Amino acid sequence: MEDCIFCKIVAGTIPSYKVAENQLAFAFLDIHPANPGHTLIIPKRHAENVFETTPEEWRAIADLTRELSIAVEKAMNADGLNIKMNNRVHGGQDVMHAHVHVVPRFKGDGVVKPLVQKPAYHEGGAEATLEKIKAAL
Amino acid sequence: MEDCIFCKIVAGTIPSYKVAENQLAFAFLDIHPANPGHTLIIPKRHAENVFETTPEEWRAIADLTRELSIAVEKAMNADGLNIKMNNRVHGGQDVMHAHVHVVPRFKGDGVVKPLVQKPAYHEGGAEATLEKIKAAL
Repeated sequence: MEDCIFCKIVAGTIPSYKVAENQLAFAFLDIHPANPGHTLIIPKRHAENVFETTPEEWRAIADLTRELSIAVEKAMNADGLNIKMNNRVHGGQDVMHAHVHVVPRFKGDGVVKPLVQKPAYHEGGAEATLEKIKAAL
Repeated sequence: MEDCIFCKIVAGTIPSYKVAENQLAFAFLDIHPANPGHTLIIPKRHAENVFETTPEEWRAIADLTRELSIAVEKAMNADGLNIKMNNRVHGGQDVMHAHVHVVPRFKGDGVVKPLVQKPAYHEGGAEATLEKIKAAL
């Protein structure tokens, strides 16, 4: 897409610290890392979010994500690792080209916050939710 | 694994709200959801984290994660969605059986916090980090 910074990175018209690639996905260092080694994995084709990826693109992203999780943790001698993807503005997405964050973690660094979890479903709420999701599958 | 709650959920010896499954992965509702529809995707075999999954298990998890991201957003009429995985205690992992969170988001809900990102690498820092990761690939 013409004005997409990540499309330009894939095309090489904007420089990046490329880590790896496969046929359909591309990985590079986040230049404002949560911790050193923070890597982004994106589809080469412009897909805005997980919903717009094809099953094949998503598998290519997943393959690179697993390989880089292993390599990044080892390379940075990290104590843990997060994989995170924000989809749409209200999911916290900033750049509107799908991207998966791989973030190495160090004891007590606090750079990835826990989910804010809520009380259990009220009676019947889980069953009703389950039926809605199954109907959408 | 004998004392693993998620292994018991896969085996059916602990009840769960099962959403879907494929050959190697299983998905069920988180009973303390960040938002209604919050779903967990896990490998059927006991693997503690992303590092212990096989490439085939990880693809099975990824396939279900994409399918459920689409279905959960649609079913819950959400405004966005996060995919998140915590690996190891210092990565915020609580249950020590690998699990991917799919969390539907609603405008202003604040249930998934942004990454705490840092200033850019100091001069030469990105290059040195890149070399370490490539050496670990």
